[in-house]
This record gives sequence, C-alpha cells and structure tokens, in this order.
Amino acid sequence: MISARNVTAICCRRILSTSSYTVRTHICDELSTSNKNEKVSVMGWLSHKRMDRFFVLRDAYGSVQAKISASSKLQSLLKDIPYESVVRVDGIVVDRGDNRNSKMKTGDIEIDVEELTVLNKATSNIPMLPDANANERTRLKYRYIDLRSDKLQKSLRLRSEFVHNVRRFLVEKSGFVDVETPTLFRRTPGGAAEFVVPAPSPNQGLAYSLPQSPQQFKQLLMVGAIDRYFQIARCYRDEGSKGDRQPEFTQVDVEMSFTTQNGVMQLIEDMIISAWPESLNHIKPKSPFPRIPYSDAMRLYGIDKPDMRIPWQIDDVDNDIFEFLQKDIDDDTWRSRILVCRGAGKTTISNSMKNEWKRLIQMNENGKNFAICHPSQKRWFKPFDNQKLIDQFGLIDEDVLIVCWGNSEGVYWTLEVCGLRSKSNVTAHWIVDFPLFSFEEGQLVSTHHPFTAPLEKDIDILYSNDIDKLLQITGQHYDLVINGVEMGGGSIRIENSEIQRHVLKVLGEPTDEMEHLLNALSHGAPPHGGFALGLDRFVAMLTSDGNPLTPVRDVIAFPKTKNGKDLMSDAPATLSQKQLERYGISLLPNAVE
Amino acid sequence: MISARNVTAICCRRILSTSSYTVRTHICDELSTSNKNEKVSVMGWLSHKRMDRFFVLRDAYGSVQAKISASSKLQSLLKDIPYESVVRVDGIVVDRGDNRNSKMKTGDIEIDVEELTVLNKATSNIPMLPDANANERTRLKYRYIDLRSDKLQKSLRLRSEFVHNVRRFLVEKSGFVDVETPTLFRRTPGGAAEFVVPAPSPNQGLAYSLPQSPQQFKQLLMVGAIDRYFQIARCYRDEGSKGDRQPEFTQVDVEMSFTTQNGVMQLIEDMIISAWPESLNHIKPKSPFPRIPYSDAMRLYGIDKPDMRIPWQIDDVDNDIFEFLQKDIDDDTWRSRILVCRGAGKTTISNSMKNEWKRLIQMNENGKNFAICHPSQKRWFKPFDNQKLIDQFGLIDEDVLIVCWGNSEGVYWTLEVCGLRSKSNVTAHWIVDFPLFSFEEGQLVSTHHPFTAPLEKDIDILYSNDIDKLLQITGQHYDLVINGVEMGGGSIRIENSEIQRHVLKVLGEPTDEMEHLLNALSHGAPPHGGFALGLDRFVAMLTSDGNPLTPVRDVIAFPKTKNGKDLMSDAPATLSQKQLERYGISLLPNAVE
Repeated sequence: MISARNVTAICCRRILSTSSYTVRTHICDELSTSNKNEKVSVMGWLSHKRMDRFFVLRDAYGSVQAKISASSKLQSLLKDIPYESVVRVDGIVVDRGDNRNSKMKTGDIEIDVEELTVLNKATSNIPMLPDANANERTRLKYRYIDLRSDKLQKSLRLRSEFVHNVRRFLVEKSGFVDVETPTLFRRTPGGAAEFVVPAPSPNQGLAYSLPQSPQQFKQLLMVGAIDRYFQIARCYRDEGSKGDRQPEFTQVDVEMSFTTQNGVMQLIEDMIISAWPESLNHIKPKSPFPRIPYSDAMRLYGIDKPDMRIPWQIDDVDNDIFEFLQKDIDDDTWRSRILVCRGAGKTTISNSMKNEWKRLIQMNENGKNFAICHPSQKRWFKPFDNQKLIDQFGLIDEDVLIVCWGNSEGVYWTLEVCGLRSKSNVTAHWIVDFPLFSFEEGQLVSTHHPFTAPLEKDIDILYSNDIDKLLQITGQHYDLVINGVEMGGGSIRIENSEIQRHVLKVLGEPTDEMEHLLNALSHGAPPHGGFALGLDRFVAMLTSDGNPLTPVRDVIAFPKTKNGKDLMSDAPATLSQKQLERYGISLLPNAVE
Repeated sequence: MISARNVTAICCRRILSTSSYTVRTHICDELSTSNKNEKVSVMGWLSHKRMDRFFVLRDAYGSVQAKISASSKLQSLLKDIPYESVVRVDGIVVDRGDNRNSKMKTGDIEIDVEELTVLNKATSNIPMLPDANANERTRLKYRYIDLRSDKLQKSLRLRSEFVHNVRRFLVEKSGFVDVETPTLFRRTPGGAAEFVVPAPSPNQGLAYSLPQSPQQFKQLLMVGAIDRYFQIARCYRDEGSKGDRQPEFTQVDVEMSFTTQNGVMQLIEDMIISAWPESLNHIKPKSPFPRIPYSDAMRLYGIDKPDMRIPWQIDDVDNDIFEFLQKDIDDDTWRSRILVCRGAGKTTISNSMKNEWKRLIQMNENGKNFAICHPSQKRWFKPFDNQKLIDQFGLIDEDVLIVCWGNSEGVYWTLEVCGLRSKSNVTAHWIVDFPLFSFEEGQLVSTHHPFTAPLEKDIDILYSNDIDKLLQITGQHYDLVINGVEMGGGSIRIENSEIQRHVLKVLGEPTDEMEHLLNALSHGAPPHGGFALGLDRFVAMLTSDGNPLTPVRDVIAFPKTKNGKDLMSDAPATLSQKQLERYGISLLPNAVE
C-alpha cells in the first residue's frame, strides 16, 4: 500500500521547491534533523493539540509537531484555536531526542514555536474532520474538508501524475499533438441521449449537444492531416441515474493515421506502461498484453471483460440450474460469477483460507450472495442441492465450485476474500475480433459504433443483405480489459465514404445528420484508427492498488451523486425567468414542482 | 517568420520516430541524400503532378517529389488520381543530381516509384485546396481541408507545444497538481449570462450552468489542501454574437495557497518564459515584466492595456477636439489611438517611412481612419484643421502626431505600417493597483470579481459605507498585458468568510447562492491567490510572431462563427420532440421559426 505522502515525495523529486512562490520556508513533510537549529515558517491546518503546549500542524504533504514553551502566553492563544483552523508557525527546529515519535515521518524533530499566527480561524462546530468516517452525503456536501483526507489527496495527486506521464509519452516520445475539440456541437444520431444546450439569439429555438466523445472530431482531424492526435477530453453522457456513472467524465482520446489494429494496441500498451506511476511499479503489467478473441472470452469466462487475476476458467456451464442468478438483473451493477476450480483444494487452498470460507458462509447464513460447493466438506454449502451441482459439474473431492452474485462490489469483494486472485496484481489484456454487428430487439445494431471498419476480407459480405452473414463480419475493434473492467476501446475506422454510407444504411441510421463526416471522407481521408481510455476508472483501478472497487467519485475532485446532484452547491438549480427568455424555452408543466 | 515545418522539426527532436506504430517508413520531410538507395514507404496527399510522371506527395510534415519511370503503366493510374487523394508510394530514394530543387527541403532527392497505391480517392470536384485563398465561410465549412494548410498546421502544433511546456513547468518544476473541475455546475450570481443545460429526470425543471471559469472550484481546492492547483480549463461564455469571441474557450488556470501578489506574478512570468516555444525564442520577453500602476497606465497610455511596443506615451489629450473619434463606438472592436511623437521625425523616422506614410495617406484619401500631423509637411494632413492641432499639442517642426481610429485590426495594422512598433518584439508587463470597486450605471460593481481581496491596509475602509472612500480601495489584482492585449488576470482572494460576505453585501449581491463558498471559507481556508491566462489569445499572439492580429479562430481546430454557428456540421441544430420531453422543456413560440 502506498500513502499520499509517498506519492507526493515521488512527484516532488524533480521539483526545486514546493515552497517556491510562497511565504512558507518548508512543507511540513520535509523537516528532519538535518534542519536542526534552522528557523522555519510552516503553514497549514491545526490537526491535534494537547496540554495547550503541543500541537500538530498538517499541510498538503505531511505533519509536524510544534511546541510552545511552558511559560509562553501563546498557550492561551492555542487553547482558543479550533481544529482545522489555518495557522502559521515560525520557530526553530529542535531534535526531540528520546521523545522521538517513530510513527511520524517528522517524528525526530519538533518546532520550538516563536510565533503562532492564526491565518484564518475555522468555525468551532466543524461538521466533519478529514479522514473521519463521515457518511457519504456529508463528505460530498463538505467536499472541501474531505479533500484534505489522505485518501483524496492521494487519488488526485496520483491522477495528476498519471495524466502528466501520459502526455509526456504521447508528446515527447511519440510525436502526438494535443488538440482541443469543441464540446458545444450538434447531436449524434442514434445512440444514447445527449445533454442539450439551448442557444441564445440569433439561434433561439436551436440547441447544441454536449458530445459523448470527440469521435467525429478526431476522425475529422485525421482528414485534416493532424495525423497523431490526442486529447484528455471531457465527455458527457446523460443516463439519468442509471448506474454509478458521472454525467461528465474524462477519456484519454487518441487517433492516428496510416496505422493498423496492432499499431494502436502497441501504442496504448507502451503509453500505459510508460505512464504507470512510479510508486506503483510493483503492480505494473507487462507488455505485450495477451489478446483474446471475443468468442474465446465468452466461452472460457462467460463475459467479454474477464478478470484474468482469477486463475480458473469457466467450464461450459448451464446457468439455468442457478435460478436465483436471474433475479435483480435489471440492476446493471449486478454480477454473477461461477468458477469451477478443479483440484483447487489440493494445490492452492490453505487451511486459513478454509477457515475464512467457513466464516464467510456463517456471515452469509441465508445464502444471499455467496455459495461454495466442495464435495468433501458438504456442510459448507447451505442453500442449494449440493449433489445436483456435484453431478452437473463432475466435481471430485478436492474441487471447489464458487458462485457469487449480487452487486459488483460485493461479488468482487467476496472473490477477493476467497483468495482467488492475488491482491497486488494487475492483469491487462485485449479482447479482439468482436462481431461488427449485433442483433438487439429485432434489429441490427453496431456492436461498438457505426464508424468501426470490418476486416478487409469481410467487406464484400457487407453488401450481402443477409442478416446471418452480416452477423458473422468481424470488426477491427479492440477492448482493453484490466482486472475484469473494460478500461477502454478503439478501432480502425471506415475511411471510405461509400462504405460508411452503406454501413449507416444497413443499420437504418439516417445519413442526413452525418453528411459533414461523409463529405470529409470523400475529400482525402487517410486510413486511421484510435483508442479511448476511460481515465476515471483507470485511475480508480490504480488507487485501488489493483483492486477495481474504488468508486470513481473518489478520483474526481467534485463528483456528483448517482442522481446527478452536486450536494456541495446544490446543482442543478432552478432556472430564472430571464434565463428561460434568453434561451427561448419554457418548462413543461410536469417538470415544475 | 517560422513555418509549420520548423515547428515540427523542433517538436520531433525528442521523438524516436514520428512513424512509429504506423505502416509508413518515413515522413516526407525527413528524406534526404542520406537515404539514397533506401527503399521507403511514404503516405500522404497528392498535391501536384506533371507530365503524368512526376508528382508531389505531401504529408503533415512536408513534401517530397516522386517519379514514375517513362515506360510504367503507373502513368495512367497517376493521371486519374484527383488532387488531395491519399496515396501510398513505395520506392527507392534517388539523388536528383543536377535537377535538384533548392526551394524544396527534400529537393535533393526524389522517390523512384515502384508501387503507387490509392488509399482513398478524393472527389474530383474538391471545393478548395489547402493554402488556397478560399473565403472564410468555405474554409470553415471544409475545415478538414483547411486544417491541412501550413498556417493551421503551424498554429495547432505550436499550441500543443506551448501547452505541454506549461504543464512541464507547472508539474515538474513547480509541484502543481492538475485537477479537473466540473463543467456542469450551478449558475454564478451576477455577471454575464451562462449557458444552461436542462437536467433530465429526476431533476427535471432544474438546470446546470456551464461556468465561465473554474473560479469557485479553484478556491474550494485551496480550502481542500490542493495547495498548488492548475488546469487547462474549458470555459464558456454566452455573449450572443457580441465581438469575435468563441462561446467556449480555454484558460490556463492556476491557484496557490500561502502566496502573495508578487508570488503569483513571479510564477506566471517564469511559466511563460519557460514554456515559450523554442522556435520563437527571438521574441521571448525578459523577466521581470515591468509593473505599471493602473492610474499611471490610464494617464500615460489612456488605456489599462497599453501596447508597450509603441515608444511614445500619450500626453494629456483632450479627445473632444477629435469629434470623429466618437462615432461607431458601439462596436466593441472599435479603437482609437492618438500619439504625440515629440522629436520623432528627427530621431526615428527614415525617408522610406516618410514615403510609406505618403502612400498610406494617398490610399486613405478621405481620411477614413488614419491621419498624421507633421508641422513641417502639412500637406500630408488632409481632413482636419492642422493649425488647431499644432497649437493644441504645441507641436514643433520634427514632431509627429498620429491618430488612428476604426476597428482594432485596422488600427493595429496602420500603427504597424507606420513603423511605430517593431515587428518581432513582444512587450509583456503587469498592470497593478486596480481599484477594488468601480462605479457603473449608478451602482458599485467589482472592477474584476467579488472574490478579489483589498490591500490589507484598506480593509477597514470596506466598512465605511462611503462610496467615495470605497472607490479608493486598491484591490490585490494584476492583469498581464502583452502588446496591448490583456492576456489574463488574477488576484489574491478574500479568504475570510465575514469579509467576503460583507463585500457581497456592499455590492448588493445576494449571498444565498454563494453559501457553499462562504461556508468553505469558514472551515479552514488558507490565504490564496491565482491567475488565468487566456490560452486562445495567447497562442494567437505567438502565431502572429508578435503581432496580435491573428484571429483566435486560427488557433482553434473547429471554431464557431461570430454568430455561434459551426458551419461544418451546422450546429446548433433543432431539438427533437424526444429531447424536449426528456429535459422537460418546450420552445417559446417566438423561438420557433
């Protein structure tokens, strides 16, 4: 486990001084016996005090103890300063000698206070403290206090480090150009709902849309000879309160001309490995990331984003025997995982693991979301017909069958506690060879999006008019999966205007709103392809130290709730009459409270 | 003047290969006699052909000539390829010997074509060519062709280089943390109109606002102990079609705790100088940038953003004698500049300059926007009462008085042609000591914004209730002006909740929508301040090689027109019934065509 303080230390290595341009002389964290007898000025938050003489000052980087001399009148001042007030301490660094605190990084020294200045007093009834276990709503409402916690300091600084490393790789090592694309655009036909921004006069009655990705723009940049483009792009998706997703999110968006599937996948592997934060080197994946065809992934793992930390593959399983797995699947956080671990008991499972399993089963008396079938220890398996499972899967004594179901958090947690994956390990791999089209609700849809190119050899089939044949076309699409989470995806795009027009026709998508792109493809469009990495979930994975369970709101400075609310400022807010008039809109009667 | 190709060469220095991850072996620009007899694959746009045998291939980085042998059947293929088609050339690099083209960087060699592959044919009736003089609307409609031009390639690559250098300075040298803040927020009370984003269920009837800057967030981050924050932030402003401004724009947004005005100004100077693109080193300003008090700027230059390339200061001038200067001032691009250059004729002005002036005056027979008064050569001064001016300003023989008026572009152009500023010179300076409040339309307003702190010594006056005294308070605000353009501004903020509340009260701003910020200030807010650099106009200045006249649309990949239209995709677009229902809105009758 790394702490925020380590991350800071690493980030600071290349820095002349984190105190440059400020009125402090040092950050708390850097004081040590080498500063003995130096006069220093440090500034930060009052985080602990005792006996009206000793207190701990905390800044963004660490903490240090300060001491007021026994006879000083500063004692009464200190007594009255509420916790989390911002104070300035001027004093001399002294060696604590035998009183050193080995649990504190700066515990060898303390500051002998000469001056104590209250820079800004905090209210004495502060609603929460950083690193306290306040509930989620309180933490979101007082986000500016929560941000002082180790956890969020670590997340945001790690995010910044990773993003900067990505940029260095793309710009300095690979010649990519950082281009900003508009967020006020026109709606993309088909696909999910997009937030709208009503235009003022002279465009009243019309609206911009906030795009879900810069997909069209990056293709247009390729046509425009910006042949190595990237952007850390803000994207928007309106999914109402579906899932634990943020209405705005960020992706590392990359596109390149004159390339191939392999070219893009190699670029992204190199980018991720090059940008991996130094402090997390011990869990860095190795290149090349294995490539698994979509059909293999579905057969062996039952999912197109398998968690490869789990060393067992799924046998051909008829899920119907687990009727309970069908319930609650409207909830898109709901997961089920079935694993047959053959010979697992003999080779892998320790006694402490068995005891842990017993404990879990006892905790989970009603078989709510977790079951283990172990032929030699039948008593562990409570709610189901054990023999039926043993027969169905041909289990022998030392085999173990594990079923987990429920929300994804619970499932992953359970599997982790079951010890079936190693904690500090990251497995990255590609899923490739997806079908270009899928069949959903009686119609043909793009498996990913309508701009994905088919394999060269399958182009002719595009014109076959035979749905069964169309469903066999393989797309040049690739998904990056890390620890069972889809981190991003990309494809080689269709660069030929006529083929693109035909694909839209096959999908029944009107082309009139896409004429600008179709036109661009017929005015000198190079072959091109790219990738988009979901930055929020990628950083969540990094801060989880290999565990995908960190919610993305913990790697975002000011996240919104599941319902799209900002609890701190109470956004969204009511519209004034002036705003309604300016944008030429009125509220529908049922939208008004 | 630098070309796009130079910029590329500089950016590429640190790069292993701009062809990595692609199927080409080289970019056009890098081929030379050192590649003689090498087999190469290059790809790009067909930009010139002659005799069905010779053609020029252009990619993002440069051009190279290719030659088909006299008897090859490829000749008829070449004949049929429309210009701007994307082709692949495989062949051998050969020395052109006596036929070398010294005007072309790769003119020493050509490619002896073995294979010529059409990767994507362009339409034969292409509406414009890159670098052609198409009109502005055509260029915006076919932006993806215009982007291939030298001018836009240079702008976008220079922008990327500058932004990357800024990040390197802030992250690596100065320990700043890159934090993304939301763009879906609540409206900011007071100030300009902000675009609204109606929320879907369960928040129907409410709306997010697209913020004009991350001002509140960056202050909240300081409260949250991210004590050195930056972001290259997308911002939004709804000004209808007022001025040549984009509805979305970008600023380099910086904030720091425990600092002073001097600390922030020094940081920004170091950042700008450190990030200055290498290829433009000859026009890099020197630190420290001079600091000019606001009152001096107004007195000496008549404006709070003087163009310091002009070596003369304005005398105390009574503008009323130039009645014509009053007209058209509703147009916010309209400028007037009056300069009395004492002794200028004797010391600075060459004969060729005098001839140039004559030519300008002749071009401008009707005195439409330009006049020069030179006592010894009265015939130059056409439309006004010369003697009156001579008397008014006490001009003697070698003095020159220059008046320019009209739109800013014309005024700057005229002054430049007049030779009153050196072309490749950049002058950067700070305007400081602004009044905290101004008096506009009968009420007190913030000169900048209500979060700016007054000077420490002026805090008591805040509570005086005397408007005349309030107007004398000096704010801790600083503007960065380069070549007469305000590039950005910043301030030390109010960190004390009670003072902030009082300032809002003095301004008559309701505090109920600002409670989250006021609360934050009373929960442990450090002293802090920051700056925002207008990235678009800064890069426009850079690409103008010191001249501020490049329109910002030339440094933005996909700009909108003055009326907020995207001519390429025809955004904004109509709203569908489904969209109106989803967001609980309807269009006002007068907003519908």
